Amino acid sequence: MRRRQPLAVSMGDPAGIGPEITLRAWADRHERGLEPFVAFADKDLLAARARLLGLTVPIAVVGSVAEAFDAFGSSLPVLHTPLRAPARPGVADAANRGTIIGAIEDATAAVVRGEAAAIVTNPIAKHVVRGDDFAFPGHTEFLAALAERHFGKTYRPVMMLASEELRVVPLTVHCPLASVPKAITRGLVRETVHTTYTALKADFGIAAPRIAVTGLNPHAGEEGTMGREETDVIAPAIADLRSEGLSVTGPHPADTLFHAAARRTYDAVVAMYHDQALIPIKTLAFDEGVNVTLGLPFVRTSPDHGTAFDIAADGRASPTSLIAALKLATEIAAARAAGVP
Amino acid sequence: MRRRQPLAVSMGDPAGIGPEITLRAWADRHERGLEPFVAFADKDLLAARARLLGLTVPIAVVGSVAEAFDAFGSSLPVLHTPLRAPARPGVADAANRGTIIGAIEDATAAVVRGEAAAIVTNPIAKHVVRGDDFAFPGHTEFLAALAERHFGKTYRPVMMLASEELRVVPLTVHCPLASVPKAITRGLVRETVHTTYTALKADFGIAAPRIAVTGLNPHAGEEGTMGREETDVIAPAIADLRSEGLSVTGPHPADTLFHAAARRTYDAVVAMYHDQALIPIKTLAFDEGVNVTLGLPFVRTSPDHGTAFDIAADGRASPTSLIAALKLATEIAAARAAGVP
Repeated sequence: MRRRQPLAVSMGDPAGIGPEITLRAWADRHERGLEPFVAFADKDLLAARARLLGLTVPIAVVGSVAEAFDAFGSSLPVLHTPLRAPARPGVADAANRGTIIGAIEDATAAVVRGEAAAIVTNPIAKHVVRGDDFAFPGHTEFLAALAERHFGKTYRPVMMLASEELRVVPLTVHCPLASVPKAITRGLVRETVHTTYTALKADFGIAAPRIAVTGLNPHAGEEGTMGREETDVIAPAIADLRSEGLSVTGPHPADTLFHAAARRTYDAVVAMYHDQALIPIKTLAFDEGVNVTLGLPFVRTSPDHGTAFDIAADGRASPTSLIAALKLATEIAAARAAGVP
Repeated sequence: MRRRQPLAVSMGDPAGIGPEITLRAWADRHERGLEPFVAFADKDLLAARARLLGLTVPIAVVGSVAEAFDAFGSSLPVLHTPLRAPARPGVADAANRGTIIGAIEDATAAVVRGEAAAIVTNPIAKHVVRGDDFAFPGHTEFLAALAERHFGKTYRPVMMLASEELRVVPLTVHCPLASVPKAITRGLVRETVHTTYTALKADFGIAAPRIAVTGLNPHAGEEGTMGREETDVIAPAIADLRSEGLSVTGPHPADTLFHAAARRTYDAVVAMYHDQALIPIKTLAFDEGVNVTLGLPFVRTSPDHGTAFDIAADGRASPTSLIAALKLATEIAAARAAGVP
């Protein structure tokens, strides 16, 4: 990471666990070796949540991202983003949607301006933020729209889940399982593998990335006897990619692709749908998974969990995934700054 | 297990790894604490494969299952089932299909007669055994047909994958992913959970089984916004089962159901399709998984892998899963003999 660029952390839903895990991550900053970050959040919310949980976290309201870098050692730097309504733990309130969205916009703008190294987003709830001005399925698509607003180009973001043990990219994400087979196209496989390949080089510093692609059906269709998508769509896309010189294998039966020996044969897996990608990573690394958005002109990570309204402010929420997201954002920003290997 | 009943092990495809893992399991019998078993196999095949691999395994051709019990200590007991054609490692030969099928029939008959405690099947290849007299997708359905032949009743077998850490039952197994949504019915969910529940009590000795049921869609459909099967089919089936007094929860998002803390909350998971069930168990326990057929009038287990023609007789095949299948068959037979808790 270039010097004096903190990470920009957006507040997330103030009724969820975002505020408390941000406080706890700061408290663990030395132990976990975290680089400075600044919270785009309501200062009073953070102070109140710290009191409620008995956390000693001094809040430093800063006037600029740059100030946050030095403040971080002794206090949690906050760029104050005022709530419209009191935030009650566990009780989502659409009155605060403007603040929730604004924190993401402001944090992104700070990264685009080069003041911050990367954006790390706390969880939001779709049903809270959804509105005429926010018709996105989630963060990822919203950030792509912000990127377009800033850079005047269209981006096709790709979601990766990353842990120490495994990196997975679902080709399709938030669609019903019945819609998955038709959504898988040769073009989508190619594009997703290309985006993943580029990110493995530029963001993860892997000089010669190896990507494994799953099949859709049991046993990857077993020669077309249990489904044709492998033969008709996935294998031809892999052939295209290999002819372009990419190190891509598959379609592999998904059930035998995620044990320890198999994981040593690739740097990332492109899987066909949500559960095929997320079951293995959450089985192996439930608390340490990080959501990384590939294919954007800035670095964005987030913890791999939701708002968790049901446990907000009750003391159980763990900052582990947010801490992993902060560390990975630092690493990716450093890799991008160093240039492609 | 009742005394003096060995396990009946069927040969599997002689061109695959079945013969060698059977030899290796016998060689590890003391170290792994295996109860006696008898191989329904060609004696010359086993002797030749032992020579090829440099294994010192004396073969004892026995005339009855009962003889095998005492022979097991000093040699591998074999009920000779002659091949029709020489078995070359890695080269499947349909000329031997009659012997492959006959070994399963004979081993099953020995269990039905009460001479053997359970059947443990080595892997077969569908394309080798398929024919006018064998139109089954695999072992499980063939064994159900054998049960019907012996007992004059229809059985609906259910496949479970079991390891130390996890038991999973896929509701649908070998069908294309595109066919899965329509295959999920309220009746099938109910029947599969009932069979699983009965087996957890009778076969696994769990007095009050707890079963978790997955959803089909990402996030279990998220209140119907990403698919309706949870709302329309799975949740009503679970409600039925709960009203009958069964301890059943769900539909759960599949991605967050398999980490260590979640696994402590149930005794088995009923999942909606092949990969949803098999990805977590093969990620956690690639070598130790056992395939158990529930809902049959006799005990049957098998290693959770295929014929592995590609590595047959090259020395790499591990007997770990077969050994786990032998041990679990012994445990289940003992539980059935002891009666429902």
